[in-house]
Amino acid sequence: MKQNTILLGHGSGGKMSSELIESVFSRYFQNEILSRQTDSAVLDVNTASIAFTTDSFVVEPLFFPGGNIGKLAVAGTVNDLSVSGAVPKYLSAGFIIEEGFPMDQLEAIVKTMAEDADKAGVHIVTGDTKVVDKGKCDKLFINTSGIGYFPEGRRDLGIAKGVEAGDLILINGAIGSHGMAIMAARNELNIGANIQSDCACLNDLIYSVLNAGYEVKFMRDATRGGLGTVLAELVSKHKIGLQIFEKKLVIEQQVRGMCELLGFDPLYVANEGKVVMIVSKNDADAVLNQLKKHPLGKDASIIGFVTDEYAGKAWMETIVGGKRIIEMLSGQQLPRIC
Amino acid sequence: MKQNTILLGHGSGGKMSSELIESVFSRYFQNEILSRQTDSAVLDVNTASIAFTTDSFVVEPLFFPGGNIGKLAVAGTVNDLSVSGAVPKYLSAGFIIEEGFPMDQLEAIVKTMAEDADKAGVHIVTGDTKVVDKGKCDKLFINTSGIGYFPEGRRDLGIAKGVEAGDLILINGAIGSHGMAIMAARNELNIGANIQSDCACLNDLIYSVLNAGYEVKFMRDATRGGLGTVLAELVSKHKIGLQIFEKKLVIEQQVRGMCELLGFDPLYVANEGKVVMIVSKNDADAVLNQLKKHPLGKDASIIGFVTDEYAGKAWMETIVGGKRIIEMLSGQQLPRIC
Repeated sequence: MKQNTILLGHGSGGKMSSELIESVFSRYFQNEILSRQTDSAVLDVNTASIAFTTDSFVVEPLFFPGGNIGKLAVAGTVNDLSVSGAVPKYLSAGFIIEEGFPMDQLEAIVKTMAEDADKAGVHIVTGDTKVVDKGKCDKLFINTSGIGYFPEGRRDLGIAKGVEAGDLILINGAIGSHGMAIMAARNELNIGANIQSDCACLNDLIYSVLNAGYEVKFMRDATRGGLGTVLAELVSKHKIGLQIFEKKLVIEQQVRGMCELLGFDPLYVANEGKVVMIVSKNDADAVLNQLKKHPLGKDASIIGFVTDEYAGKAWMETIVGGKRIIEMLSGQQLPRIC
Repeated sequence: MKQNTILLGHGSGGKMSSELIESVFSRYFQNEILSRQTDSAVLDVNTASIAFTTDSFVVEPLFFPGGNIGKLAVAGTVNDLSVSGAVPKYLSAGFIIEEGFPMDQLEAIVKTMAEDADKAGVHIVTGDTKVVDKGKCDKLFINTSGIGYFPEGRRDLGIAKGVEAGDLILINGAIGSHGMAIMAARNELNIGANIQSDCACLNDLIYSVLNAGYEVKFMRDATRGGLGTVLAELVSKHKIGLQIFEKKLVIEQQVRGMCELLGFDPLYVANEGKVVMIVSKNDADAVLNQLKKHPLGKDASIIGFVTDEYAGKAWMETIVGGKRIIEMLSGQQLPRIC
């Protein structure tokens, strides 16, 4: 019998677990591999190397303008694989659910995951459900791990190899929307009420660039910690210098307003559908055009360049012409953003 | 600066996250792949097929006689891969941590994970940390996902293929120890105080059998839901009949006593180091001997047989000579056992 809420028995591994798997998980995540219901999915491999990644999602609230925790869980892992240069193939889904959680909300989240996985061309092939007593977790947490295949000859693009002075830095659109959408949803603020999270699977966009034959020297999705953290990490690891221009950053007006009002720096506000690329000066315009052709890249822009001045530092030239150093954030801007 | 407790900033993706990774995770989980600190681990694949699995761990208490949540997280995923017939190779580790969690406990858990992964020959190659506000999760949850390689010619042993009447059922030792160890630890019971969880990585034991060339027709680790659930699931999926003998089951005296006192059925109490195997009658004695040679199999026994009577049912002949049907458990015996 299908219950209206999650009970502890749904995490028992017994009859109620089977019913939950049948009525919710298998119903939406249906594919041949998952339906074998063994503890491990067995996958054919036709590649010399794979990418493997994991992410847990604890976003609060679970539903927000532009998505829900399930959409985030699929996009986050698909994007982590994609920025490495791999083609995302398989996901796992691990659910930790609070006793009493409404079944219809679980079903809505699982349905989104299934739809988004399908759109992104990935299969959810193995899963796990744990239920904890009421008050022992906040509604629902999801872990997705993922496997992607490297096409022959493609290296790991998460490593900034061959990046040199003169290379240009691109991003596929506006920054800060996910963080401020969550903030508005969490506080039921009147301001910012129309801000949509940018949460999206970027594999199709990224492959439109890679498959067109352009050499991307480095790629990273700018999620938790925002664009600023990607740049600060990059210079700290690779001892290169980066300079970006504030006037080149696209920030939606409502996002900018909310950041100003609440004292957030959009450079550090989370995105869930933004990728930073470094390409050679020669390729930059063509890559920009390629990005702009895609719905997820229509607001793409070249935001800065690699320099051998200030090695180990990232700088932003502000709109008024000053220079501001981009450092690693030391505290927490906004907890439970993803 | 290393803090004594986990703060929200440790989940920010910024400076404090980096410090936590450096001072705890990278310190213990050190390997070349992880140290690249990209969002995806890139792994060389030299096999035609891989096994992929995921498990979240929410055990309460985090530390118990015989192990801790970290040991469980490594063993659980190593075992899920091993029973499929794959050789476990790579793990991911996703941590959800409650703000205020003591750093020394996190470190103890991570240290155990590193040691156990090392002993089992697997590498923790990718990870993720989320921190939630105090009261929003119960101390610490861990997700481990894993990848294993199939040696050439080995099929998925989690599928009961070729199982036929007359085959014998083996288990590598005593049942119910993990569940009752958790129960005793949770309630600080005086009885059962010496019960140790059987939590262990079974890959070495399993490979001692497979590498000796014996054909294992089916394998499953008997975890949440116990031995009874493995048998009940097997008959419901494969329409075979199974019969086991109560007198052949090894149950430690303290475990038996505690089950009787508290009204638990040891057949359904969780194990974390027990594997059920089905082999042909001809191979059974040799497999039993092979199991007994290994420290984790010294109490192995043949507990029953496959029959074409009662297809779709599992039965136990009780010590007094009665017959009891082994059904799927409908409720929850004991929440948060793993």
